[in-house]
Amino acid sequence: MDPGDAILRDGRDLRAVVCELCRRLHRAGWASGTGGGISIRDGDRAYVAPSGVHKELIAPEDLFAIDLEGRVLERPIDPALTTSACTSLFLHAYRLRDAGAVIHSHSIHAMLATAITTGSEFRISRLEMIKGIAGHGWSDELVVPILENVAHERDLAPALADAIRAYPATHAVLVRRHGVYVWGRDWRAAKAHAEVYDYVFQAAVELHRLSR
Amino acid sequence: MDPGDAILRDGRDLRAVVCELCRRLHRAGWASGTGGGISIRDGDRAYVAPSGVHKELIAPEDLFAIDLEGRVLERPIDPALTTSACTSLFLHAYRLRDAGAVIHSHSIHAMLATAITTGSEFRISRLEMIKGIAGHGWSDELVVPILENVAHERDLAPALADAIRAYPATHAVLVRRHGVYVWGRDWRAAKAHAEVYDYVFQAAVELHRLSR
Amino acid sequence: MDPGDAILRDGRDLRAVVCELCRRLHRAGWASGTGGGISIRDGDRAYVAPSGVHKELIAPEDLFAIDLEGRVLERPIDPALTTSACTSLFLHAYRLRDAGAVIHSHSIHAMLATAITTGSEFRISRLEMIKGIAGHGWSDELVVPILENVAHERDLAPALADAIRAYPATHAVLVRRHGVYVWGRDWRAAKAHAEVYDYVFQAAVELHRLSR
Amino acid sequence: MDPGDAILRDGRDLRAVVCELCRRLHRAGWASGTGGGISIRDGDRAYVAPSGVHKELIAPEDLFAIDLEGRVLERPIDPALTTSACTSLFLHAYRLRDAGAVIHSHSIHAMLATAITTGSEFRISRLEMIKGIAGHGWSDELVVPILENVAHERDLAPALADAIRAYPATHAVLVRRHGVYVWGRDWRAAKAHAEVYDYVFQAAVELHRLSR
Repeated sequence: MDPGDAILRDGRDLRAVVCELCRRLHRAGWASGTGGGISIRDGDRAYVAPSGVHKELIAPEDLFAIDLEGRVLERPIDPALTTSACTSLFLHAYRLRDAGAVIHSHSIHAMLATAITTGSEFRISRLEMIKGIAGHGWSDELVVPILENVAHERDLAPALADAIRAYPATHAVLVRRHGVYVWGRDWRAAKAHAEVYDYVFQAAVELHRLSR
Repeated sequence: MDPGDAILRDGRDLRAVVCELCRRLHRAGWASGTGGGISIRDGDRAYVAPSGVHKELIAPEDLFAIDLEGRVLERPIDPALTTSACTSLFLHAYRLRDAGAVIHSHSIHAMLATAITTGSEFRISRLEMIKGIAGHGWSDELVVPILENVAHERDLAPALADAIRAYPATHAVLVRRHGVYVWGRDWRAAKAHAEVYDYVFQAAVELHRLSR
Repeated sequence: MDPGDAILRDGRDLRAVVCELCRRLHRAGWASGTGGGISIRDGDRAYVAPSGVHKELIAPEDLFAIDLEGRVLERPIDPALTTSACTSLFLHAYRLRDAGAVIHSHSIHAMLATAITTGSEFRISRLEMIKGIAGHGWSDELVVPILENVAHERDLAPALADAIRAYPATHAVLVRRHGVYVWGRDWRAAKAHAEVYDYVFQAAVELHRLSR
Repeated sequence: MDPGDAILRDGRDLRAVVCELCRRLHRAGWASGTGGGISIRDGDRAYVAPSGVHKELIAPEDLFAIDLEGRVLERPIDPALTTSACTSLFLHAYRLRDAGAVIHSHSIHAMLATAITTGSEFRISRLEMIKGIAGHGWSDELVVPILENVAHERDLAPALADAIRAYPATHAVLVRRHGVYVWGRDWRAAKAHAEVYDYVFQAAVELHRLSR
């Protein structure tokens, strides 16, 4: 088992898990440039990656620890680092859904899924993979709200909170021509959800192409 | 040779082989979320992965050993783990075909191949890769039965058994908008078959697109 | 530098180079199942992989050494292994072109390039990557002969020899709905050619789609 | 953290960084065959890879060090190696933009982006990833000049210099049916820019397909 797999299998060193998941986000094309991100909650605190850095290269000492109001509890040694621009969005999933982790992906599949969908809801049904989202069967309709993108990521936070409240069954919120926020009750569920939603978005785009 | 390749090259530690193949299933996109799976038979017993876990992170001590009636002979230390929902499907391939291993893939190529096919049979011919399926030449028609998906994976078992009996030349059964079950006389043959069928499904989808 | 990169960088242990290139062939999707292959020549002998095995798992002791008439000089310890079905095709590139290595790929891009081309020649021009094929400028027309596929790989050999003689500027021969044979003056040139041809075939398929 | 990640995280050994980034260029499909390249500047000198070699296999001792007029300060031990054909193009980005690194990619996404664009400018707007290019917001129009390709890479240099002067906001120049040159204030910015532009080119091609 390679060292990264071993970190995830053990799963108790949450700072190390954040870093390993960031490496996988980048490898999957979900965090190109310095985009995308992840946060993991540990009780009433959460770890977040810094903003504007290469996500596949971060180490545990680069992370911020914050409380669930967003106050910084611990900061990286490097004083130039600032918390991820997604932090306020992560907090909504923690507070409104009791999520244990949130993944923000810039996957091209998520982006294209919003481009083929008019209106504010992505909908799909009858895919086995939908069973991978908590609370859903394969023939249930999977509904993901789509927010319109804005200039500053932090300004998405109120709309994200509204969508989380309006769609109690969702574990993800899409952002038009931008990407997706996905969460779960712990980081394992968030990782599984992120993989399943990505598959579903890709499937939707391919099925859309084949149907034209 | 990396440690994973060495496990497969040696090939005698079947518990380790199950884990290494699970890692490759995940890397290939065939086991996103906690989907997909594999079982390897060792005489009158078989190893199966647990249900609902990240397939790329399992270790030999997580596996169940079952007999060919599905009775558990050995269970993981972790009492929370349950056998894969595919277990009864794997058993049909063992009992009806004397298979040595079965791979269940959620590959998007397999899923799309069922989406472009109306009716209950996927058919293709004149692809060199078809020679990679035991008993087939390149210009033979490769026929793969397609089952309609159902709510619970275990409820697919009777239809799978019927399809295995009705299509004696097949080494795979597709499930609509779900994925595919592939087997072979041993795990090496099952792995090769799984790669060949996946190529063929991708080729069929691409050729379909180019022909429209 | 990882061990595989170090083997290629040094490049003198040709048996180890064959094995490392086989691993990369498989990773690239050019040797799914047990398809594809490679041979490297060392003066008046050549190394070839065995037939019907998982190409990413072979080790130096699995290789055959043959002379340029195809006579076996050294064989693997495992008596069950037989020489690759491509051997007679590899020999034509050695004898007619003084090639130093030949790569046989089942890349889906090569296969699709033959599917969008009617007639016996693949032609493309005005791609910078064409400069990567010895003797070609970017605006030269790259012409690759296409053979019709046959039931047994060895029966392709006479047509391959004819194509090699008829197209003195080519370093590759395509086979319809099958794949491609690519060579170069040594294994480094064959590897570079194989990557360039694969890019060109993919580009041709994508440009064809975009032009419709 | 694997050794390649550790080299980039530390980031101070620029010769090692050039080699590690070349490996990643190749893995991403941006340097197939012996194409693509990278240069990193260190004050008034710059490191460049040799021409016509497998970019994923180079080592620090293979690099040239040049001054910003292109004069060779240090050369590899191997006397057969010559400087990359892109060297004069890299120098324009250093001198006209004070870039700290330049990446030349043969990515098929960049090539296809030039194929779907008539005229001499690639334009796109309203993609979150555009924020990843210095000086741009998500709804700003990202404009990348496109040069027509020429027979010899060095003959692109005057047109590249003109484009750099004519488009002061760009950090990239495309070359028709060839690829892209991307730079940044240091190698980290150049790497991030290269990943973002590649995402944007892929997105443009996919959105073009979906809109037809």
